[in-house]
Parts: sequence; C-alpha cells; structure tokens
Amino acid sequence: MIKIRRALISVWDKTGIIDFAAALERYGCEIISTGGTRKVLKDAGIAVTDIQTLTGNPEAFGGRMKTISFQIESALLFDREKDAGEAAALGIVPIDMVVCNLYPFEKVREGGAELPELIENIDIGGPTMLRAAAKNYRYVAAVCDPADYPELLRELEENAGALNEVRRFSLMRKAFNHTADYDALIATSMDAEAGELTLRLAFEKPKKLRYGENAHQEAQFLRQRGSRNSYYDMQVLHGKELSYNNLTDMYAALESVRDMRPHTCAIIKHANPCGLCSGDDQRKILEYAWAGDPVSAFGSVIAFNTTVKKESVEFFNLDADDRSRRKFIEIVAAPAFEPAALDYLKIHKNLRIVVYNPRLLLPKKDLKFLHNALLYQDSDLKLKAKSEFVTKTRRTMDPELLDFGLKTVRQLKSNAICIVRRPEPDYCQLLGMGCGQPNRINSTELSIGRCRENLKAEWDGNGDLETFIRNAMGESILVSDAFFPFPDNVEIAHAAGIRCIAQPGGSISDEKVIARADALGVAMVFTGIRHFKH
Amino acid sequence: MIKIRRALISVWDKTGIIDFAAALERYGCEIISTGGTRKVLKDAGIAVTDIQTLTGNPEAFGGRMKTISFQIESALLFDREKDAGEAAALGIVPIDMVVCNLYPFEKVREGGAELPELIENIDIGGPTMLRAAAKNYRYVAAVCDPADYPELLRELEENAGALNEVRRFSLMRKAFNHTADYDALIATSMDAEAGELTLRLAFEKPKKLRYGENAHQEAQFLRQRGSRNSYYDMQVLHGKELSYNNLTDMYAALESVRDMRPHTCAIIKHANPCGLCSGDDQRKILEYAWAGDPVSAFGSVIAFNTTVKKESVEFFNLDADDRSRRKFIEIVAAPAFEPAALDYLKIHKNLRIVVYNPRLLLPKKDLKFLHNALLYQDSDLKLKAKSEFVTKTRRTMDPELLDFGLKTVRQLKSNAICIVRRPEPDYCQLLGMGCGQPNRINSTELSIGRCRENLKAEWDGNGDLETFIRNAMGESILVSDAFFPFPDNVEIAHAAGIRCIAQPGGSISDEKVIARADALGVAMVFTGIRHFKH
Repeated sequence: MIKIRRALISVWDKTGIIDFAAALERYGCEIISTGGTRKVLKDAGIAVTDIQTLTGNPEAFGGRMKTISFQIESALLFDREKDAGEAAALGIVPIDMVVCNLYPFEKVREGGAELPELIENIDIGGPTMLRAAAKNYRYVAAVCDPADYPELLRELEENAGALNEVRRFSLMRKAFNHTADYDALIATSMDAEAGELTLRLAFEKPKKLRYGENAHQEAQFLRQRGSRNSYYDMQVLHGKELSYNNLTDMYAALESVRDMRPHTCAIIKHANPCGLCSGDDQRKILEYAWAGDPVSAFGSVIAFNTTVKKESVEFFNLDADDRSRRKFIEIVAAPAFEPAALDYLKIHKNLRIVVYNPRLLLPKKDLKFLHNALLYQDSDLKLKAKSEFVTKTRRTMDPELLDFGLKTVRQLKSNAICIVRRPEPDYCQLLGMGCGQPNRINSTELSIGRCRENLKAEWDGNGDLETFIRNAMGESILVSDAFFPFPDNVEIAHAAGIRCIAQPGGSISDEKVIARADALGVAMVFTGIRHFKH
Repeated sequence: MIKIRRALISVWDKTGIIDFAAALERYGCEIISTGGTRKVLKDAGIAVTDIQTLTGNPEAFGGRMKTISFQIESALLFDREKDAGEAAALGIVPIDMVVCNLYPFEKVREGGAELPELIENIDIGGPTMLRAAAKNYRYVAAVCDPADYPELLRELEENAGALNEVRRFSLMRKAFNHTADYDALIATSMDAEAGELTLRLAFEKPKKLRYGENAHQEAQFLRQRGSRNSYYDMQVLHGKELSYNNLTDMYAALESVRDMRPHTCAIIKHANPCGLCSGDDQRKILEYAWAGDPVSAFGSVIAFNTTVKKESVEFFNLDADDRSRRKFIEIVAAPAFEPAALDYLKIHKNLRIVVYNPRLLLPKKDLKFLHNALLYQDSDLKLKAKSEFVTKTRRTMDPELLDFGLKTVRQLKSNAICIVRRPEPDYCQLLGMGCGQPNRINSTELSIGRCRENLKAEWDGNGDLETFIRNAMGESILVSDAFFPFPDNVEIAHAAGIRCIAQPGGSISDEKVIARADALGVAMVFTGIRHFKH
C-alpha cells in the first residue's frame, strides 16, 4: 500500500478532476498543479501548490515548458528504498501520484488541423511525467484516464488514501498503453504528412476461444483499441460460447445482409452464403433462403437485417416432438429480437443468439496479414459501373433482381456464379450458387445443379418436370463475379434454360462470348465491375 | 538549413558514435554528453561538455536522472524565433541535435528478464529528449538510428555542418516511430506480465499496388516493422508489377510447398492448389502437377521449393513457334533459379519471376481482421495425431502418400477433399480435388470428376477405359479435411473406385461411416486432426 501524500495534477481533459482532487485533499494529500488545471482547482476552492514553487523554474515558452524539471521527475523516479538518502540530500520530496492526460492530438487531427497546429499539440511534459510515474509504479500511481477516477476514489476511501500495488501495476499498464497510442498516432500522422501510409494497429481485451479453426490451434479474439464500434461488441444473448469458425461464418452472414433491403436473411456454410433471400415477409425470406440449399442449411449460421419475429423462427420447429423435424442451426444473428422470438429460440440450449446490427459493419478497408506483411485495400463496395445489354437479344433484366444477384455474388468466394430469381413478385432469392473453384465452368455447373435440385423439390408433380425447370431458369438471372474467358459458360447456362446473364465483361474473348449469346438467344448485360473475393 | 552548433549525445548502442561525434566536432559543433557515452567519446579524444555543467544537477538515483532538466528540454523545445528573447533571459542556449537511442528493453525482454530488470530498462530521459527534439524539428535534428549516421555525415559535409528541413522532418518521423515502437513493446510486455495478451502491430514501407482484389479497390502492400523476415522481402527478378491477387495466390503457392519434400511444385488458381506434386525429378513434378488440372493451370501461379532448372521450365514451351503450345502462367516463385532457367523464363515478357524461400514462411500465428476486431490463432502446423485403421478392411496406406495428401488437403478451402496417388514409385501427385463447398458431397464429387478427366487424358487407348480408371482410383487415397457426417461420401467414393480413405474422424456418425466402409471393402484411417481452412 502506498499512501498518496502528494499528487501532481495536470490534465487537458478536466472531466471529473474537481471531485477527484477534492477527495485527495480530504485524505490529506497535497495537490501540486500547473496552468489551466491549477486555475480550475483553485476556483473550486481546493488548495493547490504551484509547481513552480517546487521547481524554481518559470512556466516558459508559451507553455512548452511547465513540468519537466530535475525536481519533478526525480520526485517521481527515485527508488523510495535505495535512493531515499540521496533524495533527502537533494531536497527531493516524493510525489506519489500523477494525474495527467495529454494534449488532444487526436481531436485536433480529426478536426483537420494543419501541420503547425498538430505539432503544437504534441505533448512532451505529459508523457514524461506519466512514463516516469509508471516506471516507478512500485511507489507511484500513474493516472491517465478520467474513467478510472470513481474506482480509484472507492479504493482510496477503503484504504484511507492509499492504493495497493496491484492497482498501481494496472495503472502503469494503462499509462504505457496510453503513451504508446499517443506516439503511434503522432508517428502515423507525421508519416501521412509526408505522404506515406503507415499503420499502427493495437488490439486488446483478449477472449480466449476454446480453440481456433481446428482443435489443435489456440486462438484469441481481440478488440481494436480506440475503435468506435467493432464486430467484437456483439451481444451474445444465449447459447454455447462462440467458436472461431462461428465468428468467421457469422461475419460472412452479417456481411451478406449488410446492404440488402429490409428483411433479408443469409444462410452461411464455410464462409459462403448457400441461402439468401430478400423480401416483404420475414418468415417467407427465411423459408426461401433455406430452400436455396436445404441440406447444407443444417448446422449453418444465419443472419437477418431486421428485428427477428417469433413467427419467422418457428420455421426451425425447435419444439417439434418429432426431433427429425427440428432444424438444427448454429447461430441466429440479427440487429434485434422480439422477446417472444428470443424465448422461442432459447428452446434450443446450444443455439447461439447474437445481437449485432449488420449496418454497423461497414469496414472501408480490408486487411489481410501474410507472414509479417499486410495487404490493405478498400472494401468491395461499388456494385456496378453500368448495366448495358451487350447482346442484340434483350429481355427484361429486373434491376432489383440484378442488384440482389450482384450483392450475392460479391459474397461468394471466386470463381463464383449465382443464379437468382423472384420466387414471387416481392422476393429475390438465391436459387443456386457455385463458388471457390479454380475453373469458372465448375462454378457454373455447381450453380445449375443446385438450381435443378431445388426446383425438383419445389415441383408439385403437375405437368412436365423439365418444362417446369426450364421455365424457372428462364426467369432467373445468372450472375458471374468475373468475365467469361470462353463462350462455354454461356453454352452450359443456355442448355440449362438460362436466358439472362450478367457479368462484368472485359475479356479478350468478349466478342466471341457475346456472339455465342446472341446465337443462342441469351440476353447479356455487362456491369463493368468485377467482384473477386478470396 | 540549421547549422548544428551544439549536439547532445547519449546513446545506449555506441555503434559508429565516435566517428559521428568526431565529424560533428570537425564542423565546430560542441558535444554535450553524459554517462557511458561521455567516457567513450573522451577516450577517443573528442572534447565533451559534461551535461551537468549545463544543468547544474548531479547524475542521480543510480542513473535514473541524467538528462531530464528544465535546461536541457528548454534548449531543445524553445521556438528559435518567438522565444529567442525569453531563452536568452533564462540563460538557455539552443541544442541543435540530439543523438540518442534507448535502453535495450527489447533485447533484455528477449533474454527472458524478470519484471524488475525489465522495469530498470524502461528509458525515461531518452524518449523525453528525442520527443522534444522531434517536436521542435523546425530547428532541431532528432537522431535515433546509428544506420543514419553515414548519410547524415554526407549531408553535414555538403552543407558545412548544417541539415535541411526535409531531413529534419524525416528524422522527426523516425524519432516518433521509434518512441511509438518502444512504448508499444513496453505496453504489450507489461500486459503480458499481467497474463493478458495485447497486440500492437506496425506496418511501413507501403507499396501502392495498381489496385486491390478488383480494379475499383485501392490497395497497398506493407511490411511489418521490426520483423526479421517478411513475405514482403521477396525479390521480383522479372516481369510486370505484382498484383494484389498475385500476392495472395503466390502466398498460397509457397505455403503449399513450404514443408513438402525437396522438389515439390504447386499450381494455384484462386488461392487453392489445383495441381501439386512431390518427387525426385523437378521437370516431372511440374508435369504431374500440371496434369492435375491442365485447363485451370493456364494463368496460374506456380511455386517450387528447390532451385529451378531450365529443363523443368522448358515444359512451358515459352519459345514455341506455335503460340498455342506456349503455356501462359502468371508467376513462377522459387528459392532460387539457375541462370539458364532465368534466361529461359524471361522470354515471356510479362511473366513474374520471384525469389522467395518458402521455408522462411513459417508464421506461427494467423491473423484475421474482422471490422475492428482480430482473430489470432496458431497456424495449422500439426499434420496428424494418429494413423489408425478404423475399418476391419486394411490395405497398404503408404505413409508418405498419406502425409502428402494431408499436407495438400490442409491448403484447400473447406469443405475439401483431395485424391492423391503415386503416378510412379518416387512421386506423389494430386490427382483431383474439390474445395470451397458448403456440402462435403459436392467436394467429393468434384474431386472424383477431376480424377476421371485426368485419367481419361492419361489413358493410352489400350484396354478398357473404366478398368484403367478403377485401377488408378483403387491405388489412390481420398483425404478429407474433416469428418464425414454421413456414410454417403464413402459410397460415392467407393462407386468411383476408391479403396483407401483418410479422414480425422470425430463425427457422431463415425460408427455408421465405418460400418459402411467395411461393408464396401473400403479401408479407412482416422488421423485425429481436422484441417478446416477458410
């Protein structure tokens, strides 16, 4: 325990400082201060020792020199045991606490300040005091965050004006993290002034996961320091602890519904959407999404972009007596849940129920870490540059359905093909997808195969199945994430009944591809924007 | 231009300091120093002003107080224009350069020091001087890196002992980056002492890429500060600038050969290996890898783990008169190239030739960034926990081929299946793979389809094709990255002629899967280790 007999207070952010200083005074602590802080405390009736009386130096150079001195840093740094005699001989009286927060470099920078103003807002004395106090944490408390005052006051109250070493160690960690953040921001800002991008990323609040992508890999989940909102901030309302793969799949699920119209549902398996639907009724979009791949949907991760209603999730039949009718899923994530929906979902003990608003999930930058190197890019946010028929054959290419298809294909790992349709007027549905293939042909075939399976399941047995399938395919749009290198994809699509294709264009074979589409009576739109994702 | 009339030198790392100080002295600069540095300089015959004569303070508290003083920081910080009169009145004489590097916290930490020694190695005076000098860069040079001395000497020589503002700005950036690194290391170390993982990652040396994953995304490639080796350090010997997708595909290619036996070649398309072979002869492994997916291999990224020979890469027919015989690829990466191989590859103007040793590529941690959050996990380095037949049916399951199959499946995006074989005794080849699918059945079918295509191409027309295929499949191993949830995969594999399967096991359906394998006479090994990758 160290009794706080003298505290040096010099803060930019004056939040809560009067109450904190007043409490210190009550425990008999002498308050040393300077500049604006001194004035605020004096005006509040708190007795303050002017720092100049300790140092003998004036405040100089427009405030650039206020605290830095042999006297102050000695009072913070000397070893209270080994150096006690030397300190006494030099007339150094110990300071037991520094309360300091730094010039608001970040705020000034965010305000768009020019270089000279930025430079003026680089604090020199503050970090020196904080770092000296933190280094000598065995005897000194380094307080840098107004949010800590209430807890510190409680502890000071409990211990008659003293703090224990555990607390001082924790304050020390906070102080060095604070000065590390501060210099990180200065360094990257000055590099930016020189036109050079450098990045300094800090992550904290580790949550140990049961394991990583596989059981033999240890893993942690951390939050980026200082970020206003983070994927980390999701609320888990129910269910088993989230696993590493849950976190990545849920991210893909939320990304898939992020910029879709209200009432969209995505079903994710291994980071790819295998079911996806937008429309007016939440229960129906879930059913249509599920129908996109009703086998893979078991054990999937599901996200909605609207408040989840009970009638929607009753689709999972969680309370069915016949267990085989219950639809097992891993996670339901959404911006909110109606209480009745929540109660219903909680029937399944292990099901994770997560609140997160996918619209918050707007990273403007993607970061990929490759063995001590980083790829840093803009997120893929632009949907299309144009929407022009390149074929003589034209056919209604429903703009909303096309946008839905582009947003869907953008979420699939390349090479990716998706086939989308309107199962009824107000709905857009992913009918089949193919993804993650070295060859685009494979993806085209996978997407067609999935559509055929789904349409077979949908067929009511009346009329001819192949006619039913061809009609449905004919009303769908096939969307490709990148151009077709050869006309073969068009041929395969046509053979399956597809009559509308959207792709970015840009291949040296475009003319051949267009000619083939025209020969087959397939309408094709070029969007001008590729959507590779890996 | 600022003439360096007085320099304060206080360095932990004394490399080059005598020459640097001697040169400063020649330009008429007064050298101020302290402690060990002063002794070294004096012993070298350099005139040194003791810092104590400026400050009037003793060196105190076992060296904790040496430089921090009103006099020194004022001499660094005052504005040479606005504050000149005030400085003169206070008797402050300007110091124009600080040469300082910090206590070796990092080295001491890497040496495994305990907390008290770590704390002793937190420099307080050094960062204060450097930061003060850097803040006042318009008048002061902050020198923190011995590697800069030669260039600074050259500039001082050119400018009769002065440095220009561009240089001082650059030194300022370096100083704040240095103190940011220093406090980052202290902060994460102190958090680690408290048992809490925090991460601070810094990236520098941005290379602007033409664009990111797609043309509408801006992108940069950066190196992690302070990393001993980095993927960034590859040497590009020839060809067009590397693109974002080149960098990710090449990473996958190098990863795929990293821990394979000498002479392994990987062929990557969209981040997945579609061709892979290990064996004695480099030309042959390239041919066998290519044969794994000869259509997708066009436009691929290829990596070797041994020095590339001309006779191997002549396989690409880059000099064929018949252009259709030339095999277009994007990149060849390898630890080294024989000069003749290099000359041959340079025939293709756009082909990127990259030197990088894949064995350096041993990240022990994978980092995944998810909207202001980080997933941090051990890399997937453990191949198998066991290798036990779980079926009554046993058959030779060649350990080298099994290892090759596990290393291959580990590189494929989940759900992943690969079928591997020995095309001749000393070679292991990827015959077919399926990956990136929401449903394992799709991957099994894709891998079988690929094998059948490849075997058809290999068939010499003698005998029965199906018998030829069944024989080849019967000598292969099918490897699954994760367990089979149902026996259907076994049935499909068996129908295609597969007689050996390796999978981790661990499903609640294991017994049914094993029973089905036994009923069909398929031998199955459990490895105990799953290899999901997303």
